[in-house]
Amino acid sequence: MHNTASAALGRELLSENTHLAQHNREHFDEAGVFVVNVMSAPGAGKTTLLEQALPLLARRHRVAVIEGDMATELDADRLRERGVDVLAITTGRACHLDATMIARGLHHGETKLDLPSLDVIVVENVGNLVCPAEFEIGEHRKVALCSVTEGVDKPLKYPIMFRAADLLVITKLDLLPHVDVSLDQLVTNAKEVNPALEVIALSAKTGEGVLNFVRWIAAGRAAHAPPVAVRA
Amino acid sequence: MHNTASAALGRELLSENTHLAQHNREHFDEAGVFVVNVMSAPGAGKTTLLEQALPLLARRHRVAVIEGDMATELDADRLRERGVDVLAITTGRACHLDATMIARGLHHGETKLDLPSLDVIVVENVGNLVCPAEFEIGEHRKVALCSVTEGVDKPLKYPIMFRAADLLVITKLDLLPHVDVSLDQLVTNAKEVNPALEVIALSAKTGEGVLNFVRWIAAGRAAHAPPVAVRA
Repeated sequence: MHNTASAALGRELLSENTHLAQHNREHFDEAGVFVVNVMSAPGAGKTTLLEQALPLLARRHRVAVIEGDMATELDADRLRERGVDVLAITTGRACHLDATMIARGLHHGETKLDLPSLDVIVVENVGNLVCPAEFEIGEHRKVALCSVTEGVDKPLKYPIMFRAADLLVITKLDLLPHVDVSLDQLVTNAKEVNPALEVIALSAKTGEGVLNFVRWIAAGRAAHAPPVAVRA
Repeated sequence: MHNTASAALGRELLSENTHLAQHNREHFDEAGVFVVNVMSAPGAGKTTLLEQALPLLARRHRVAVIEGDMATELDADRLRERGVDVLAITTGRACHLDATMIARGLHHGETKLDLPSLDVIVVENVGNLVCPAEFEIGEHRKVALCSVTEGVDKPLKYPIMFRAADLLVITKLDLLPHVDVSLDQLVTNAKEVNPALEVIALSAKTGEGVLNFVRWIAAGRAAHAPPVAVRA
């Protein structure tokens, strides 16, 4: 959230955004689509994790990605190469996705997603450990990534993100032997700001733990929208 | 920058901020203080670099730090342990320092900095690769950090930051053997968005290259405010 002098206006924008996010969520619910919002600092490994996880998730679910970046479609292209349908949203100067961008993407995009043909949408937000946490987009679950190279103090220093998240994914487990970081302390700090936070540690490079993330999404989808007997 | 619907207001806030930043800069110039604004994604290693660099810089310069964090004084305390004077600014929900916060810190803080007694102020901004780049605080130079673990594409995906910066500091050089990252490609991408960008690669862990960063600050200070014959 910006400028201290504009707090009232900020609240109004946030409230308007939350309203529109609810509208997006209704669209997702009508179509039976489970939506996960993946957030982290730049470079924590969101795209690399999705490259590994989404082909596994796609074995049993119809999956698409909404890819938010300030500039370029580099990440969108990486995921398309894995055979995933991607709606790319380039945010320009905006430091996060918001409900308006998602709504516009859903309704007006040339490459708009066909919701009834999907089970799961994974949204990769702009790399930012601050602002995306405050802007709902209509998601059902929020995931925050934190790499072991970022140190153990991030949950304490960026509490809004870790409080908002349902799941913390600790990434780059393969680098743990090379950094002075205690995994236990990172988890302790995260649970301090959010005792209900679930935690999965993994390495997208070695594959260790990636299946746990895939299962977490699949379980969330199953709990949210139980399979119906007949689907058109 | 937030919400697409509030672009005009955003420009107004930015313009107001730039005006106040100029006011801060005049204060710094009057006192002969050289101010460096250090920015990066969370976890790129700003505090760890300053822990190593500032005691070296302090051998020949009178140095203080303005430390911006959303929550906690963890980083401020780490630097105080190194004997550095620190003015801590806790930003709450704000995702960057702005000129108002700096002005308030300079004029009204209980622990306010005594400008005439200083040569250099290093500002450690909130960890965010987006918003801090747009909010001047009255600094003379902008430094962007990017760790080797963040990958080579960050300058292309977050061009505003890398275009605004005078210096790119590539951190965590000690981890280079353990990641699939080309240092040359990272520099090439950074120079693509900002051909004038200077680059220093270093490891605060091993100490390699840290002195280059210290010298860069000292040289900037010398060029900006040549030593006067008599100083009170």
